[in-house]
Order: sequence, then C-alpha cells, then structure tokens
Amino acid sequence: MVATRTRGRAALRLALPLLALALLGSAPAEGGPSAPHFFLVFAAILIAAKLFGELAERIGQPAVLGELVAGVVLGSSVLGIIPADGSMVEIITLLAEVGVAVLLFEIGLETDLKEMSRVGGAAFTVACVGVVVPFLLGFLYWYIADPQIGAAAEAAGVSPTMIAIFVGATLTATSVGITARVLTDLGRMHTREARVIIGAAVVDDVLGLVILAIVTGLAAGAALSLFNIVSTFVIAAGFLVVAVIVGNLIAPRLFRLIDSMQVRGVLLVSAFAFALIFAALAGLAGSAMIIGAFAAGIVLSSTNQFDVITERVKPVADIFTPIFFVSVGAGVDVRLLLPGSEQFDLGVLLVGGTLLVIAIIGKVVSGFSVGWGRDKLSHIAIGVGMIPRGEVGLIFAHIGMQSGILTPAVYGAILIMVIFTTFLAPPLLKPAFARGVVAGVPGVPDEARHAVHGGST
Amino acid sequence: MVATRTRGRAALRLALPLLALALLGSAPAEGGPSAPHFFLVFAAILIAAKLFGELAERIGQPAVLGELVAGVVLGSSVLGIIPADGSMVEIITLLAEVGVAVLLFEIGLETDLKEMSRVGGAAFTVACVGVVVPFLLGFLYWYIADPQIGAAAEAAGVSPTMIAIFVGATLTATSVGITARVLTDLGRMHTREARVIIGAAVVDDVLGLVILAIVTGLAAGAALSLFNIVSTFVIAAGFLVVAVIVGNLIAPRLFRLIDSMQVRGVLLVSAFAFALIFAALAGLAGSAMIIGAFAAGIVLSSTNQFDVITERVKPVADIFTPIFFVSVGAGVDVRLLLPGSEQFDLGVLLVGGTLLVIAIIGKVVSGFSVGWGRDKLSHIAIGVGMIPRGEVGLIFAHIGMQSGILTPAVYGAILIMVIFTTFLAPPLLKPAFARGVVAGVPGVPDEARHAVHGGST
Repeated sequence: MVATRTRGRAALRLALPLLALALLGSAPAEGGPSAPHFFLVFAAILIAAKLFGELAERIGQPAVLGELVAGVVLGSSVLGIIPADGSMVEIITLLAEVGVAVLLFEIGLETDLKEMSRVGGAAFTVACVGVVVPFLLGFLYWYIADPQIGAAAEAAGVSPTMIAIFVGATLTATSVGITARVLTDLGRMHTREARVIIGAAVVDDVLGLVILAIVTGLAAGAALSLFNIVSTFVIAAGFLVVAVIVGNLIAPRLFRLIDSMQVRGVLLVSAFAFALIFAALAGLAGSAMIIGAFAAGIVLSSTNQFDVITERVKPVADIFTPIFFVSVGAGVDVRLLLPGSEQFDLGVLLVGGTLLVIAIIGKVVSGFSVGWGRDKLSHIAIGVGMIPRGEVGLIFAHIGMQSGILTPAVYGAILIMVIFTTFLAPPLLKPAFARGVVAGVPGVPDEARHAVHGGST
Repeated sequence: MVATRTRGRAALRLALPLLALALLGSAPAEGGPSAPHFFLVFAAILIAAKLFGELAERIGQPAVLGELVAGVVLGSSVLGIIPADGSMVEIITLLAEVGVAVLLFEIGLETDLKEMSRVGGAAFTVACVGVVVPFLLGFLYWYIADPQIGAAAEAAGVSPTMIAIFVGATLTATSVGITARVLTDLGRMHTREARVIIGAAVVDDVLGLVILAIVTGLAAGAALSLFNIVSTFVIAAGFLVVAVIVGNLIAPRLFRLIDSMQVRGVLLVSAFAFALIFAALAGLAGSAMIIGAFAAGIVLSSTNQFDVITERVKPVADIFTPIFFVSVGAGVDVRLLLPGSEQFDLGVLLVGGTLLVIAIIGKVVSGFSVGWGRDKLSHIAIGVGMIPRGEVGLIFAHIGMQSGILTPAVYGAILIMVIFTTFLAPPLLKPAFARGVVAGVPGVPDEARHAVHGGST
C-alpha cells in the first residue's frame, strides 16, 4: 500500500514536467499547427490519458473515467493544451474518430454474430424502450414544468411544443463508446448483457437517425415527409445488413489473397483499412461511422486470420483510442459547474440536473423491459450500460440552437446532462456488472477469453 | 510462378474498386475534411502503399519504392486523391511526420550506441565529404556553365555567385528516411555500413542546419554572423548529446516506474509519447525531428522493457510509416517529366539531370573517403546510402526562390534532382548491399536479429 502510494506520487511528479512540455509547444501557429506543436499535444494526450487512467484504476474505477478526466484537464476550460477550435482540434477530432472506430472494430472482432443474433429481440426491445421513454419523459417535463430558461425562444414565437420535442429528442441517443470501453476494461464484453447493450446501441443509432431526420425537418419548418423518414431508416438499417452480408462473402477470399502477400505489415494494414472503409461508408450512408467499424470487425471475425488481426490491432488501438476519450473530456466546459464563473447559471444547472435524472431513469427502465423469462438477464446492468449519451444528443441540440428553437441556456442544460451521463456511467457500470450479471458465454469463462488479449500493460 | 502471377493480377483487380472508393469521398469539404473523407484517403494511402509495395518486392525491389510510386499515383498530378494543398494534406503531412519519426524511433531502438560510436569517425568523415564535394561541384558547375534557366534572376540584379552558392547548398543534405527503410526492408540495418550511413546522416543533418543558417542570412542580405553559425551548430549538436545523456539517466527509472503501472497499453503508449517528445524537442531546437526520434530510440534501447517496446511499436509503425513514403511520392509532379504537358521544359530537365549526376557523384565519393584501413567497409554501399536528398534541399531552394535568388525554373531543376535521388536509391541500394557489404555484427547474424521483428506480414 505504501509502495503503491509512493508510486502514485512519483507518477504525478513525472506528469507535471511532461505537461509543461506540452505548454511549451502550445503557442498558436500561423496556418496549420507546426509538427513539433502537434507532436507535443499528441504526447500530452497519451501521457495524461495513461496517468489519469492509472489513477482511476487505483481508486477502483475503470480506466476510461481517468481518460475522460484527462481530457477535461487538457481541455480549453482548464489547461488549454487542447484548444476549443482551430486546425489543431480539427486534427485531434479526426484522430479521435479513428480511435473510437478502432475500438468498435476491436469489439466487432470479438463479437460472435450468432451469439449476437440470439439476443437480437432483447436488444431491439431495449433500444425502442430506451428511445421512447426518455423522449416522452423529457417532452412531458418540458411541456408541463416549462422551465423559464427557454423563454427567450418562446418570446420569439417558437411554440412550447416544438421546444419540448427537441429537448425530448436530445435525450434519446445512447453513445456506445464509453460502455463498450468500460466492459472491455472490466473483461465483461462476452456476457449476454454486454451483447444486448451493444446490439441495442446499434438499433438505437438507427432510430437516432430517424429522429434526427424528423427534428431537422421540424427545425427547417418543413412538413414531415414520411418518405424521408422511411428512406433514412432503410438506408441506415440496410447499410448494416448489406455490409455484413457482402463483407462475409468477400472478406474470406480477400484475406486469403492478402495472406499470400509478403510485404511487411500487410495483414494488419489491410484489416485497418477495411475498418476505415466500412466506417466511412457507414458515415456516407448517414449512419454513425462507429457502426461501420463494428460491422467490419464482425465480418473479419469470421476470417482465418482473425486471431493475428486481433493481436496486431491491439497496439494500434492503444495509441488511437485514448485520443477519443480525451477528446470527449476536452469538450467539457467545467466553468458551467463552477459558481462564480461567467458561464455558471444556477437555473441552467438545475434544469440540467432534472434532464440528467430523466436521462438516467429513461434508460434504466429500458433494462427492465427484457430478461424476465427463461433467459434471465441483469436489468440494472443493461439499463446502466445504455446511460451514456454523446455526440448525437449534442447534434440535435445544436440544430435546435441554430434554428432558434433552443436558447443557449437550454443548450447548456443539455450539455450538463450529456457530461454527467458520460462520467457517471463508468463508476455505475462497475458494480452493476460485478454483482448483477447472471451468465457469461457457456463454456467460455470471460476471464479466460479476456486474458488472451488483455496482457498489454 | 503462375500462381504468383495470378495473385498479382487478382491484387490489381482488388485495388481498383478500393481506389474508386477513395475517389468517392474526395469531394472537397467546406472547412476541414469530413471524417468519412479523411478515413477514405487514409485507407487509400494504406492500401496503395501495400499493393505497390508488394508489386515492388515481386519485381525484386525494396517495398519502399512501391510506396513512393503509390504516392505519385495518389498525388495531385495523377489521381488527385491526396491534394496538393488544403487542410487534408496538412493532416496527412503531420501524420507522415509521425510515420517517419516512428521509423527512426524503431531504428534507434535497434541501434547499439557502443557499436555506433565505434564507427563515429568514419560517419563524421562521410558526412563532411558528402557535404563539401556536392556543394563544390554544384557551385562550380553553375558558376562556370551558367545555365540560362537562372537568367531572369541575374537580369534582376542577383549575382551569379549567389545563385551558384544556393544551388550548391541544395545538393548537400541527405534524407535518411529512404535509406533507413530500405536497409530495414533488406534486413541490413545491423551492418557496419548501415551504422556509418545512419551516423553520417545525423552529422549531415547538423551540418545542414549550419548551411541553412548561412544561406538564409545570404538571402536576407545580412552580413554573415559567425555567432549565428556557431550557435546553430552548438544548439543542434548539443541537443543530441544532452538528450542522449539525460535520457539515459532518466529513462531506466522512468520505465521501471511505468512498468509498475497496470493500465492497458501503458508501456507502448509511454514509449511512443517519449519518441514524440524527443522529436518535438529536436524540432524546437532547430534540428530535424527524426533525429530526436532516433535519439529516443537509442535511449530506450538500454531499458529493460526494450524488447516489449520493440515488439509493440511494430504494428504502430506499420500503420504510420507508409503515410510518410506515400506523402513523399505525392509531392512529385510527374508533369515536369512529361513532354507536351504545360509543366514540361527540356532546358529545366537537362539542368536537373546534370544536378542529379553531381548529386550522385558527390555522395558516392563520400563513401570512398572511409573504410580503406584495417576496418574495411564497402565504399559503394555507404556512398549509395547517402544519395537520397529530401525536404532539406527543397527548403533551401524554397528560401532561394522566395527571396528572388532562384527562378521557378531553377527550383524545378532542383526538384527533379531530389525526386530522382529519392527514387534511384532503393534499386541501387539493394545490389550495393547484397554484393558489397563486408561484415555484419560479429556473432549476431543480421537475419537472426531481423527475424525476431520481421514476421509481421
């Protein structure tokens, strides 16, 4: 214990000069960032992620919580090493997208499509309940309580119903990255509960696109076109089905061919490029890129080279994935929560807190919609796994703000809800999965499977 | 043989739709590139690098030659998937810098400082001769032959001596990335010749900075300050010495501490961040960033975790390194060499060809300046290894053009020299190292050492 504490302190002592280095290079460059500046910010992200990740694990939390905190510390509202805008943050954001895509690709690689489809019904139910309940609760809360922070928009002629619809919509989307990472950290990715959560997050993403089409239409003042809604749904769901089917036909031949190539690194590089292309196609089809990366992983999990790919992707994920979580943390403006700062507003904070409660209840309820029959499941583990919101909710809120339906204050309240669902999920998930989970894959203890890939400290 | 040919064709058949995918996403985005577009360009770079790398190896050439050709094909003068400017190319360039830094970091990791210092004298001699001879030859050629493509600047009042100095300066710098990669591909990095080349490239880089200080002073019309020249030299050389000494003191403690951390990927991520920081510090000290990354590798090669780091860095290098070579290739404007195109000018091509001959002779001569005594070395292997020029020559030329000393035509001729030294080095190095090399590390056959790290196909 003493040794642990000493090492912890030593780690912090080490951290400070390294972070100072990053500041050294953080002078704004003309045009794009200079290469040394970029290198220092990149290094600061990685070092901070691992330091805070280590500290999080030492206090019994998943490492990803530390990475999120690292992002807050490096972000523009604290140290400012990751700026709020400019070309540096553009690059970091793109690398963060690569990071979360690689994470979902890894998870796809370890996902068994058959096991997944066995929980398909439960995942679909969880997703639908987890979209409908938060939407209704959010809509009703806003419609009935009518918090005054949206008053400016109402004064400008926006109907209270419209505002309530937008607020409800921002509460619907689950961001699967956090949960997936926590379950990976905990070695719980192979439980049935984890599969239900991942499956539900995929369905949730498709539903989210439909809702996005609806709210965008509303914001533009257009009459809702049924055709638009149906086509959004068909494209997003269709992409996934087609990608997995076509991928399963092509991938084995493709990777047999690649296996016959001699040049260094060709298998890893091809698999990585495969994931990038699937992610990009998903994005171009209007779906979330991580869903495409996940599909790429599922497809490649059936190839002969699966185990080599999984092993070689791991170090690449180690480099890219922390960028995503640090980048999410860097988007948090802590001043929203600091009494006395210019950004602080008690009214906004209270409304944000109410939205947070609704956001949590709405998703936890979804966990109780399944797992009652023969196939018992831990309701609480599933419900908690669906809690983290993310960029999709913010996109809704952003559209609402741009079209004048939401005031900046409402946007701030939504931001608070998103931040807390994200930061609360890791500490809540750990006990939920430790106690609540009923069964892993029969015959394959999770620890054993995890140990194969988990040795990279 | 038939099977090989069929596979080769099948590989090409595969390549076309994948490249088409990249075109799909290559519509210019407003602001920064969209994430799907970036993903597709990234995938296209990786796929093209591996395909052309494989084809190069099948015709008996080092893979890096194929990666350079892949860059030309993706570049703005052919397919245009990598544009000539804009924020996409800014990002690609930064990732390319990471790529070449990781490459030199890997090489540093496998470099034994003691073995290296044993060839220090030879490396110093090679560097000095390889800077002085090309400079003198280039200066005299321009001063005596006075090619008319620089006439416009002379008409504007620039003295022929000044132009000749600039042209000579552009011929001096060796770009070590190409040679290092070829020697790695060939498994020849542990020969004494390879160590002389790497050592000479490091010294060459420091000399290059001094020359840069001189020509920049000349271009600005300032009197040459001896203080400037000396301080440039001291900072660049001093950085290296201090970095290696301080690094060697700190690294073992630092990495013992890191070894006691539990969080996933911490060793790889720390080593990678260490390389980024050293590279950035080298850049901020005015030296080349790759020299810093190389120093970081040397420092970490003496830690206990050396072998794990080497193994885990490999997949990361597989992803990043091709970006560098493709990016170098993408900078080539093939239209300079195509009769009938607007950019083609026979006079420029002829002058470029003459500069190319001088560039080759000047560096090959440097190989003959060492290795005559008891420590026999292959002169031709060393000389050929120093041939590739690179960005430093272009930086000199760019300064000259901006200050009006060099005309665009002279710049074009220099560009031709740089392109051909880069593309000629891989095919010339292979026979030079196959036949000419006298001795590897005693007791450690190069193939055996290489096999440890070389299995990643």
